[in-house]
Amino acid sequence: MSSGAESTGATTGGTPDDHGTLYVVGIGPGLPDHMTKRAKEVIESADVVIASSLYQEFLRADGTIPSEKQTDEDGVATRDDGFEQEIVRSTMGRQIELARAAFDYVREGKDVAHVSGGDPSVYGKSDLIFKMAEEEDATDIPIEIVPGLTAALGGSANVGAPLCNDFCTVSLSDKWRGWDEIEEKLRAAAISDFVIVLYNCWRNYEQAVEIVREERTDDAYVAIVNDAGREDAGRNGESQFITTLGEAADHDDKVSGMGTSLIIGNHETETWSNDDRTYLVTPRGGRDVDDF
Amino acid sequence: MSSGAESTGATTGGTPDDHGTLYVVGIGPGLPDHMTKRAKEVIESADVVIASSLYQEFLRADGTIPSEKQTDEDGVATRDDGFEQEIVRSTMGRQIELARAAFDYVREGKDVAHVSGGDPSVYGKSDLIFKMAEEEDATDIPIEIVPGLTAALGGSANVGAPLCNDFCTVSLSDKWRGWDEIEEKLRAAAISDFVIVLYNCWRNYEQAVEIVREERTDDAYVAIVNDAGREDAGRNGESQFITTLGEAADHDDKVSGMGTSLIIGNHETETWSNDDRTYLVTPRGGRDVDDF
Repeated sequence: MSSGAESTGATTGGTPDDHGTLYVVGIGPGLPDHMTKRAKEVIESADVVIASSLYQEFLRADGTIPSEKQTDEDGVATRDDGFEQEIVRSTMGRQIELARAAFDYVREGKDVAHVSGGDPSVYGKSDLIFKMAEEEDATDIPIEIVPGLTAALGGSANVGAPLCNDFCTVSLSDKWRGWDEIEEKLRAAAISDFVIVLYNCWRNYEQAVEIVREERTDDAYVAIVNDAGREDAGRNGESQFITTLGEAADHDDKVSGMGTSLIIGNHETETWSNDDRTYLVTPRGGRDVDDF
Repeated sequence: MSSGAESTGATTGGTPDDHGTLYVVGIGPGLPDHMTKRAKEVIESADVVIASSLYQEFLRADGTIPSEKQTDEDGVATRDDGFEQEIVRSTMGRQIELARAAFDYVREGKDVAHVSGGDPSVYGKSDLIFKMAEEEDATDIPIEIVPGLTAALGGSANVGAPLCNDFCTVSLSDKWRGWDEIEEKLRAAAISDFVIVLYNCWRNYEQAVEIVREERTDDAYVAIVNDAGREDAGRNGESQFITTLGEAADHDDKVSGMGTSLIIGNHETETWSNDDRTYLVTPRGGRDVDDF
């Protein structure tokens, strides 16, 4: 790779013609309202759709996949135009098995849509698919990532415009890495004034807030965003709450689960209220109106 | 704000009933394929659409706004169902004037869609709108941000899955801030092993690469992504190129303009090739397949 590679160029003989494609599809943070047109089209035309119960529910909400009553007990759904899709329920413990099954479907000539919430790469399923493809020597499987709106963007829009300057995302899950690595990233981001979006913060969020607090002032703004884009269909209902770094740890009742993100503003982040509500805004680089 | 505020709660009397809404709408990195359903619906139903020539072209590509021949010389477009929309061309030097005009339209009862590429907050138009609303005491204007797919996500999908661990975005534009601030962020992100996505990198990208290079090894992977999601409709055409930190500065012919992003992998980022192409992938936290 040292001399560079056009990643669109063929490396060997190309995929066999009788293969389908494995699409890893992001459906955005919530209901299909926040799904891209491309994601919707890929799911609608896939021969096999692999998705969790919650995402299946979201996808049925606007007809992206057929209703329960159009689906038989083997999971075969018949669309209004007669096209049949196999709808496979994915669950946490079966990720490897499902990736292997996806490769088999593709080899049978089927297009597979493997559904992720948000963006498939941002703490989603993409890295597993590539790891599995490597492990299984599955170089014959064409893989395409269909991007989606990640929770940072959906959550940001719900509170206003807190991401208008450089931002970073940090996952607080320490399942596959030590807390020291997470702490190092948080501290670096806090010191150098990134806006910080915390993912997987249903656990450890108080520790994360404490670390950032050591590097920033207590009056820095924090937004706690739940189930962005999901209205009442999420596990806890869509909501947003604006507080400060000094008080964020006191609001653990607002940090409810996997659908929660925390957005920690930088030293320029401010609130602005109109007659309806209060917004959180990070002006870019301290410029004022005359700079535009 | 110290005791926290539900940002959905009314603060004073609420917006006058005769007002429209100012929507700041992200249309994603490229053609309408990567626009969300919500963004499309908001633009289709707005009385006034403010967008640059390039974005107007993208929006006409799938009929989100009416064709040139359905639009008269005053910019009034008539949709197939007879609904009339005023299409306003936005240009760089007129941002303040256009924001003020948008407030006036909303006060006349019109819904306005102010169109941004990508996500409106990530180096987009949101912060200007809020700054202008503050400057003009426009507390009567309801503002809603409609999020969009930012270039980091679109570009990442085009090369594979480089953002599968903590990442940050850094704008290299030093128009409103000193280079020292940009350098501090780059260095912090490089040392603490974030995947780094560079925006506005048509200038200064070699300096940015040089800084990251001081903190990382020369064989770290870099993707240069152009016009993600735009196919041939962008200024330079959609393309992606994988190189290394040590050689990235030699490829200035690939860094073509405003539609270019650089994705700098972390120490775990690797390439993987199948029979079609080479992908860039960042496995999360060093886990292997058995961890899933």
